Amino acid sequence: MEDARSIAQPGDLAQLVGLSHKNFIIRLTPGDQLQTHRGVLQHDDLIGIPWGSQVSSHLGNPFFVLQPALADLIKETKRTTQIIYPKDIGFILITMGIGPGSQVLEAGTGSGAMTTALAFAVGNQGHVTTYELRPEMQQLAQKNLSKIGLTDRVTFVLRDIRDGFNERNKDALFMDIPQPEDYIPQVRVSLKPGGFFGCIVPTVNQISRLLNALQRENFAFIDVCEIMLRYFKPVAERLRPTDRMVAHTGYLIFARPIIPSVIDFVPDKTNGDND
Amino acid sequence: MEDARSIAQPGDLAQLVGLSHKNFIIRLTPGDQLQTHRGVLQHDDLIGIPWGSQVSSHLGNPFFVLQPALADLIKETKRTTQIIYPKDIGFILITMGIGPGSQVLEAGTGSGAMTTALAFAVGNQGHVTTYELRPEMQQLAQKNLSKIGLTDRVTFVLRDIRDGFNERNKDALFMDIPQPEDYIPQVRVSLKPGGFFGCIVPTVNQISRLLNALQRENFAFIDVCEIMLRYFKPVAERLRPTDRMVAHTGYLIFARPIIPSVIDFVPDKTNGDND
Amino acid sequence: MEDARSIAQPGDLAQLVGLSHKNFIIRLTPGDQLQTHRGVLQHDDLIGIPWGSQVSSHLGNPFFVLQPALADLIKETKRTTQIIYPKDIGFILITMGIGPGSQVLEAGTGSGAMTTALAFAVGNQGHVTTYELRPEMQQLAQKNLSKIGLTDRVTFVLRDIRDGFNERNKDALFMDIPQPEDYIPQVRVSLKPGGFFGCIVPTVNQISRLLNALQRENFAFIDVCEIMLRYFKPVAERLRPTDRMVAHTGYLIFARPIIPSVIDFVPDKTNGDND
Amino acid sequence: MEDARSIAQPGDLAQLVGLSHKNFIIRLTPGDQLQTHRGVLQHDDLIGIPWGSQVSSHLGNPFFVLQPALADLIKETKRTTQIIYPKDIGFILITMGIGPGSQVLEAGTGSGAMTTALAFAVGNQGHVTTYELRPEMQQLAQKNLSKIGLTDRVTFVLRDIRDGFNERNKDALFMDIPQPEDYIPQVRVSLKPGGFFGCIVPTVNQISRLLNALQRENFAFIDVCEIMLRYFKPVAERLRPTDRMVAHTGYLIFARPIIPSVIDFVPDKTNGDND
Repeated sequence: MEDARSIAQPGDLAQLVGLSHKNFIIRLTPGDQLQTHRGVLQHDDLIGIPWGSQVSSHLGNPFFVLQPALADLIKETKRTTQIIYPKDIGFILITMGIGPGSQVLEAGTGSGAMTTALAFAVGNQGHVTTYELRPEMQQLAQKNLSKIGLTDRVTFVLRDIRDGFNERNKDALFMDIPQPEDYIPQVRVSLKPGGFFGCIVPTVNQISRLLNALQRENFAFIDVCEIMLRYFKPVAERLRPTDRMVAHTGYLIFARPIIPSVIDFVPDKTNGDND
Repeated sequence: MEDARSIAQPGDLAQLVGLSHKNFIIRLTPGDQLQTHRGVLQHDDLIGIPWGSQVSSHLGNPFFVLQPALADLIKETKRTTQIIYPKDIGFILITMGIGPGSQVLEAGTGSGAMTTALAFAVGNQGHVTTYELRPEMQQLAQKNLSKIGLTDRVTFVLRDIRDGFNERNKDALFMDIPQPEDYIPQVRVSLKPGGFFGCIVPTVNQISRLLNALQRENFAFIDVCEIMLRYFKPVAERLRPTDRMVAHTGYLIFARPIIPSVIDFVPDKTNGDND
Repeated sequence: MEDARSIAQPGDLAQLVGLSHKNFIIRLTPGDQLQTHRGVLQHDDLIGIPWGSQVSSHLGNPFFVLQPALADLIKETKRTTQIIYPKDIGFILITMGIGPGSQVLEAGTGSGAMTTALAFAVGNQGHVTTYELRPEMQQLAQKNLSKIGLTDRVTFVLRDIRDGFNERNKDALFMDIPQPEDYIPQVRVSLKPGGFFGCIVPTVNQISRLLNALQRENFAFIDVCEIMLRYFKPVAERLRPTDRMVAHTGYLIFARPIIPSVIDFVPDKTNGDND
Repeated sequence: MEDARSIAQPGDLAQLVGLSHKNFIIRLTPGDQLQTHRGVLQHDDLIGIPWGSQVSSHLGNPFFVLQPALADLIKETKRTTQIIYPKDIGFILITMGIGPGSQVLEAGTGSGAMTTALAFAVGNQGHVTTYELRPEMQQLAQKNLSKIGLTDRVTFVLRDIRDGFNERNKDALFMDIPQPEDYIPQVRVSLKPGGFFGCIVPTVNQISRLLNALQRENFAFIDVCEIMLRYFKPVAERLRPTDRMVAHTGYLIFARPIIPSVIDFVPDKTNGDND
């Protein structure tokens, strides 16, 4: 009944979850060890056990051994800036048509959380090219992606996108930078016609400026939305939402570059009140 | 500057968007035609034009020619039952670690909207096996998946899951059926230890029953949440949310089967107020 | 056990609720009759019966006889414009300290829904003065207030508030007009120092402009918020939110005029994440 | 231009707001002093100055002198239990028709926050009777109400409501106790027919039990809802919601006791998706 998929293998990513949900994500490597404030774990003691098992550190503290989901990889991204949340990333991927084989551009590598999500989703048949202005951020992102083994799907470019992207005819472009409205002509040139543009901004003022820039550059099917995620305390007999929640991460803006045509036809997807 | 990716090719999926956002998703096939109440479009007139172009029906009505995103494929699923919404699907995929290469089980094929999402995300290196009790629903789902060319990644099984799943050691199992709490032992057997279980239910009473069933079967890391999506009217100078929104689609429950151990260690991920 | 409070009396406001929640609010008047498309009801048949009773029209259709709450009076306001919702009004009253005895100004009478709420809350020891520019709106509001017997607490003024308010040292001023940012000096003059200013605006652009105007005029303790109200289907065994909800009515802005002082002290109540 | 309303008078309630929004609510009394960790303030130095002024403690720390709104009184209630939030209270008052002159019952005095709101809203022509089981809670509430001068509108009763309420034909009854479903017959007897019943409960399980109890006792027009309040950072050029918010305080349930009648007529106000 057990096959290789159910057993921790050398080279697998593993998530160690200890008391108080302290998390560690490691790549299982014979001979290596994980040092935590609750004691040391030998990779060799983890390799070969079934996923979902419990192990103990040399100090006797328990840890669960799990395979991390993309959401876990993102949450554990080492960061020096605000990262995008899984609630937003899932919707971005599905709305921008990003999946196995996609050719994606990213503007604003940051700590690499979104880069991780993009690289995961496009699979080994797709590719992600990500631009960043600050060398130290690029290095942090490279380190984060390297740790989880996704760098072969990613090209890191250190450049001010004011100078444009090298790429053309990309399927999708996602942007997480302070003034996205300043770079829409550059986006337009690199995205294939009808491609998918997505952006996240924290303030409403940025939405307004971006909407104007998108209209100037012949983008249509514009959607603006926000996602709220509310957790419940998982207690069957006293079921209720948690007391507090994240109220705001950012607004999502989606649009598609169209080929201007004679007939005036405004297809702004005022998606209105349906999703 | 233009390459094949930017031009509509025979065999590509295309989304035709007309006035009032009337949508049609077709597979471009030389010689075929699309009949709409706003006139007829010849596939041959669409093949070879750049994505994002505007075309006209024989009655002169304009249509945009776009590549559909996964969210579009889901929204356009022909249905006889309520389907899962993109806002939920994106978060489900990312939380359950579903991506290129995943081996996934689905209980409750329904109209095939979630099956479509799963098949899209696992790519041609992964696989989805989906169970359904009602022959007419299975046929509808097969037709929907066939239309968008994803059937080769999917095994459709017609069976009451009370009799269990054939599969073992699956990475993830998603359930959308009326009484999920009745089938958790069957889930437990088919999911690999530490695998990902996910479920959507419309009522709070179902959450409570499911939580009890999951605890009986040694599932841990239980999360219960709901996602709210709010659109804005995309007008730069008068920016505001739409008047109305979807208030509720379903509650999402996630959990992972663990291997019971000696040390009593309750890792319920009362993810509390963070995501 | 029954006293006058439990019996419908001449002069009382009554709400007749028929099938499909068709509502009628009347003032019980001997000799009068209510004509509905489901038949006629004689006021004399309603006077003297206990509240909560069921009666029938001359066509045999059933109606419940209830006393309306303020929320019901507001919902049933005859309107030609968007009115403020009970979810917002309740919070406005409590945040602006409006209660029995308050002296309140209103700018933008509109259909009189908010005027009704203010007049109800201040009681017969308080007073409301409400300004409106359009004669036909003022007349509609007067008719609405008259119907429910609250006009003796209200002074209706027909004037462009650009010319200022007659009143001084008012406890609270509520504004529901298109460009509130243009009238903050006038507000400042009429509100007593430390008084309560409140405003509702539909768009985020208006919030920004209003914030600037408030800061120019020495308002502090500024709060900006929005209220979302979600109903559930009240079915014990299948409890769940309704499918759809109102996503947006307006943003609420509250502020208080302070007396400028030497010490630079910015008390903006960035109430942040508590309420 | 200045009259008595704009000047702090002996006997007035005053709110002192210092740096970091540290708040103090006092009743201005000649000869008294307020001691804070930022220094002492003499009431005599506050009496006679205009509201909205800034004063300094003997240590030179600045404070604003304001009149508190009901929302402020509630937030500053000294508590040993969770209190009801202003966002909920405002909607409760307006939905239950509570205003000047109302005769109201409360079950579960607790720290007296809701008692304060009820006493404020009914004015000096109405009355509130509030039941509590725990002597120490009643004393705390009495102290809180006494401090703000509202005790003459309130009768405090120390009794288990299992033994029923003394009152009959009350306009409205609000309940905030752990198992409201156990006391609906007692509620029924004390509320006038067609009166207003309201309740707040933290869990969904309690809603279900309460719905069953209400239906057994011939309550109709049942509404279940929840209110979410989101604040924004009030910065004109970078306008955005706060990062975090209160996700849940409680669910509100409203219902009205009706007189059973021959015709089967289910008026459950599945208020559905409007408010």
